[in-house]
Amino acid sequence: MALIVQKFGGTSVKDTERLQEVAKWVVKNKEEGNKMVVVVSAPGGMTDSLIKRAEEVNSNPQGRELDVLLSVGEQISAALLSMAIEQLGHKAISFTGPQVGIKTTNDFNNAKILDISPEKIMEKLNSDHVVIITGFQGADENGNITTLGRGGSDTTAVAVGAAISADQVEIYTDVDGIYTADPRVVKNAGKIPQVSFTEMIEMAGKGAKVLHCRSVELAAKYGIDIHLRSAFTWEEGTWVKGDEKMEKAMVRGITHVKGLAKLTITQLESNNYLSDVMDILEDREIDIRLVSQGLNPSGHFEISFLLEEKEAVRVSKLIQEKLGNKENIDVKLNLGMVSAIGIGVRSNRLQGSVMRILNNNGIKPKMMSSSETSLSYVVAEENVDKLKRLMHDELIEKSLSA
Amino acid sequence: MALIVQKFGGTSVKDTERLQEVAKWVVKNKEEGNKMVVVVSAPGGMTDSLIKRAEEVNSNPQGRELDVLLSVGEQISAALLSMAIEQLGHKAISFTGPQVGIKTTNDFNNAKILDISPEKIMEKLNSDHVVIITGFQGADENGNITTLGRGGSDTTAVAVGAAISADQVEIYTDVDGIYTADPRVVKNAGKIPQVSFTEMIEMAGKGAKVLHCRSVELAAKYGIDIHLRSAFTWEEGTWVKGDEKMEKAMVRGITHVKGLAKLTITQLESNNYLSDVMDILEDREIDIRLVSQGLNPSGHFEISFLLEEKEAVRVSKLIQEKLGNKENIDVKLNLGMVSAIGIGVRSNRLQGSVMRILNNNGIKPKMMSSSETSLSYVVAEENVDKLKRLMHDELIEKSLSA
Repeated sequence: MALIVQKFGGTSVKDTERLQEVAKWVVKNKEEGNKMVVVVSAPGGMTDSLIKRAEEVNSNPQGRELDVLLSVGEQISAALLSMAIEQLGHKAISFTGPQVGIKTTNDFNNAKILDISPEKIMEKLNSDHVVIITGFQGADENGNITTLGRGGSDTTAVAVGAAISADQVEIYTDVDGIYTADPRVVKNAGKIPQVSFTEMIEMAGKGAKVLHCRSVELAAKYGIDIHLRSAFTWEEGTWVKGDEKMEKAMVRGITHVKGLAKLTITQLESNNYLSDVMDILEDREIDIRLVSQGLNPSGHFEISFLLEEKEAVRVSKLIQEKLGNKENIDVKLNLGMVSAIGIGVRSNRLQGSVMRILNNNGIKPKMMSSSETSLSYVVAEENVDKLKRLMHDELIEKSLSA
Repeated sequence: MALIVQKFGGTSVKDTERLQEVAKWVVKNKEEGNKMVVVVSAPGGMTDSLIKRAEEVNSNPQGRELDVLLSVGEQISAALLSMAIEQLGHKAISFTGPQVGIKTTNDFNNAKILDISPEKIMEKLNSDHVVIITGFQGADENGNITTLGRGGSDTTAVAVGAAISADQVEIYTDVDGIYTADPRVVKNAGKIPQVSFTEMIEMAGKGAKVLHCRSVELAAKYGIDIHLRSAFTWEEGTWVKGDEKMEKAMVRGITHVKGLAKLTITQLESNNYLSDVMDILEDREIDIRLVSQGLNPSGHFEISFLLEEKEAVRVSKLIQEKLGNKENIDVKLNLGMVSAIGIGVRSNRLQGSVMRILNNNGIKPKMMSSSETSLSYVVAEENVDKLKRLMHDELIEKSLSA
């Protein structure tokens, strides 16, 4: 008998038929002798349509009220799933985040979970209930409803898992696991049976969209195993586990991001401005993928940021306001980034292999970065798919067949 | 400056355009110097469509979970109205029933309000906010979400009004007031500027559907004036006030109900069974409009109930199970009831007038009842409209023109 937390995303609960499939699966797991906690997202599409309604009445809706509005979707899923499980002859009870004591910061629309009280959940599990909890939401210390931002239901599931010391957290979605590369780009990409938390965090940060980064960090912190799998095929997916539980492997997967821009501030007399610029970017919550800085040939400081293309104009204006000199900023659009993820990828041999690929194919990297578990190359967007396939062939296919 | 509670029903907040009209009206009232509390219903049609979704997944959904599901509609209205008011340049904040301390019994789907904490509402009013509260819902002592049953938002508005000692409660709806009779049946029916609580309770119980009975009882208990008016024309409607504030008047209005049945249990050896029968009816929450009992010509006890036609079969089966004798029950379908409402209607002169109308027109009453403020006649359904017009002409038109 295990204590299992299962999380179901929006596509898994989007209509009556899908809800009934989920109910059957939860009941099957319960009948196998497990204690079941289920975390649900809003029905697919509902959050977007609620945002649209909000924008109809207010061009810039209050964050607090937006959270009151957006939290209803998960409540609908939770109540309906509870009814569907009871219809199958098992006791079920739903709780909203605030009801089950999910305490968060008061950063509306992007709150962080501070604490979860396990008592109510455990009490209902012990009286043989399936416990259903709304994902994505909680309450601040004054009882205001808060939401955790996009993908926040994954974080709810892991945080609940940690609070009740669950044996495992299963994240059900519309893909059947994590692949060595995007199968739409790289035909021979394969499903990865197991990755480490560190690798998963690198993958999420470098373009793999399946798991919310914060949820993996939380799982790593509390040592909760995550099983990412499909709510459509119900087959085994990918396990995300502690590093110490992993067998060693070189390259776990190749990820990519497109639609990036590089913004370079040149001719800086000193680097005194840099911390100011970083503060501006932090305040506006602008996601900077890579930063590189140094002296350029003429002896001036220079700093480059890699960011979403759609943010480039706004950010360059923000920086211009700060620095007061237009000519200092250079923007390159139409970039992408390809990354190799895996423990030990920073080895000289691997970096050498990629250099050879780039040279042989006439692809010029615009930026590069490496960490213990990732190697990233920023290239012209038109070269992203090609580079991805080449790196997959060289770094994954060859070592698999070796 | 007044402290005003305004309640808006489902048709008043059913789409963006209506919500914006409501926001403008609330802001207009605020700019006139009033402190504003607004109670909202779910967008028109939403509650019914949620019930339909529930029935798709469970043939008999748990009451608790149904309340979790149904409470989202008001939450959507409240958040959107708050945003619409902010767009007009005023501060607004929404609260769910549980957030604002609306404590109820744990009768799911039909809970009663036990208490409301005024602190949070007053705090926000004093910091110049429009305070918006979800109607129809609260929480029991364990924090479970409860709903108050159909029309419960009216009750929320009056209970909030009582808790904060509001100067008046305005109930906005899609009709523009209370009429002396249904204008679709009686052409010369007129809008009543003012009725007493007692008269309003009689009217609600005898077929007038505009105000929820419980809300009027609550208003009477706490002496809160209600102004029932239209959210479409925004014109003055009907005031419901304490009896002592009313000018005396004979007949205030004529109401009617159709689709009734009379169920008579005859040949009872003793009336021992009667209390058992009443208990059954009470447990099933069957609304009995009238009861009459007595001895029939053969010396047996006899009891008659007037109830909804659609309940007649179910109720007669329940009673048969209890009494174990089929022949004892007689059911008459296709009945209706016409009532004259007003302080002093039980006068001999008035009762005599109605008797004359019934005789002159060959209408035979099947049951009758009278109270200090109502006179009711149960007749064949086909005679209801005719009797209503005749009574309106005789008891209202004549005294108006006198």
